[in-house]
Amino acid sequence: MERTITPNIYYVTGGARSGKSSFALQLAKPYYSRVFLATAEPFDGEMVQRISKHREERGEQFTTVEEPLALDRALLHLPEGTDVVLLDCLTVWTGNLMHYGEGKGEGEIDQQIERFLEVLRHPPCDMILVSNEVGMGIVPENAMARRFRDIAGIINQRVAALATEAWLLCSGLPIRLK
Amino acid sequence: MERTITPNIYYVTGGARSGKSSFALQLAKPYYSRVFLATAEPFDGEMVQRISKHREERGEQFTTVEEPLALDRALLHLPEGTDVVLLDCLTVWTGNLMHYGEGKGEGEIDQQIERFLEVLRHPPCDMILVSNEVGMGIVPENAMARRFRDIAGIINQRVAALATEAWLLCSGLPIRLK
Amino acid sequence: MERTITPNIYYVTGGARSGKSSFALQLAKPYYSRVFLATAEPFDGEMVQRISKHREERGEQFTTVEEPLALDRALLHLPEGTDVVLLDCLTVWTGNLMHYGEGKGEGEIDQQIERFLEVLRHPPCDMILVSNEVGMGIVPENAMARRFRDIAGIINQRVAALATEAWLLCSGLPIRLK
Repeated sequence: MERTITPNIYYVTGGARSGKSSFALQLAKPYYSRVFLATAEPFDGEMVQRISKHREERGEQFTTVEEPLALDRALLHLPEGTDVVLLDCLTVWTGNLMHYGEGKGEGEIDQQIERFLEVLRHPPCDMILVSNEVGMGIVPENAMARRFRDIAGIINQRVAALATEAWLLCSGLPIRLK
Repeated sequence: MERTITPNIYYVTGGARSGKSSFALQLAKPYYSRVFLATAEPFDGEMVQRISKHREERGEQFTTVEEPLALDRALLHLPEGTDVVLLDCLTVWTGNLMHYGEGKGEGEIDQQIERFLEVLRHPPCDMILVSNEVGMGIVPENAMARRFRDIAGIINQRVAALATEAWLLCSGLPIRLK
Repeated sequence: MERTITPNIYYVTGGARSGKSSFALQLAKPYYSRVFLATAEPFDGEMVQRISKHREERGEQFTTVEEPLALDRALLHLPEGTDVVLLDCLTVWTGNLMHYGEGKGEGEIDQQIERFLEVLRHPPCDMILVSNEVGMGIVPENAMARRFRDIAGIINQRVAALATEAWLLCSGLPIRLK
């Protein structure tokens, strides 16, 4: 007799430097075979520094997979036996979607999002998804920034709706959302 | 023997695209005769689009009243038999107050706020009040934006103090504040 | 027989105009001999106004100590018999650290922070520490603002980790973080 266990999805959000990534790393600790799915691309010196700092913090305990856009594809081709994927982060992904999706029509971005959500409905293993709160400041004067805020917020809502657990980090302390 | 039931005030806040308006619509569902009190004015193409999208989302189940400034007057002249007013939103109202109050002296804005709070102390029916968190980003360089943030924050505090229930939405998920 | 009581640290954070300072004043009420440790300097007219407004709000019940930078020194030289220190606020302090630390090398800022944290590990009396959430808006375009956000966020995390109680204020209403 076979028994199916639905994998868990942990959603972790918060502001910049709120402790999201450290909290997500803690959630990943009990797992054996861990994949870190990185969405950030080192396009300038500041990013190179931030990325290498994060890589140091998580040490040797993760297999790193870098995928700026096609998260669905990355999740469907994980290394054999992966127990957990820590995806950091959805907000950088939003920026990538906008950057690469530009000129390809509105549909391109929506399709990437839908494909990702489709994988989340039947996740290949437990998932820890890190995102950012970007909508609690003054309305940006820049139309592109407003659009970014809209897309990031909608992704957060849709992903959080599919999560088993959801947390908001604030000053390093977690608030349970779900 | 007469029995007086004090109407309830539900305060719903959150960042941009945090799910505030959907949550507010859910709160309005059990009511029969619903008024949507809209504070936004369609002063450019982006606003026209946002407003018509919101109108679509709420469907035919509301009588829409548009009032950018004199919320007290709108609330004192509701259609007969109104069971609930969904006011969306206080932050756009703050912008309107600043826009129209300019040049009329500081007092104009304060008086509008006081008149609105006075109605909230004896609400004509149950009320669902949507607002925005705008104060959790970097201090704006622009003095006008700082003043906006101050006024919006003070309105939020004063309204939330009068509320029966208060909720903060985050990634579509509600945190109970009160 | 001597008994040592470890002083309490209350951490209070929130956005602009979220009611942090009023909440902190409430926490200070039960104490007898109160010190207000102010980090803000009146460098322009707007600040002069904000500072004097805050001073009015707290009335005559505090001895005010002004220290923009060396919080450790201020805390080690409190008036005899001080029961509680209300420090308002860590985010303004972050700005001061950056302003005065500029050109003195990265180390200067880190050392100030470490010295302050060292005092918090053995606080001289109960402490109420007010800070700000500044990381929940759009990523600032300005590199200096991003760095400010990073430092402010790290200070918040490290201070909140040492706190006995931690609160997030939102629309004047407190959320217990710890």
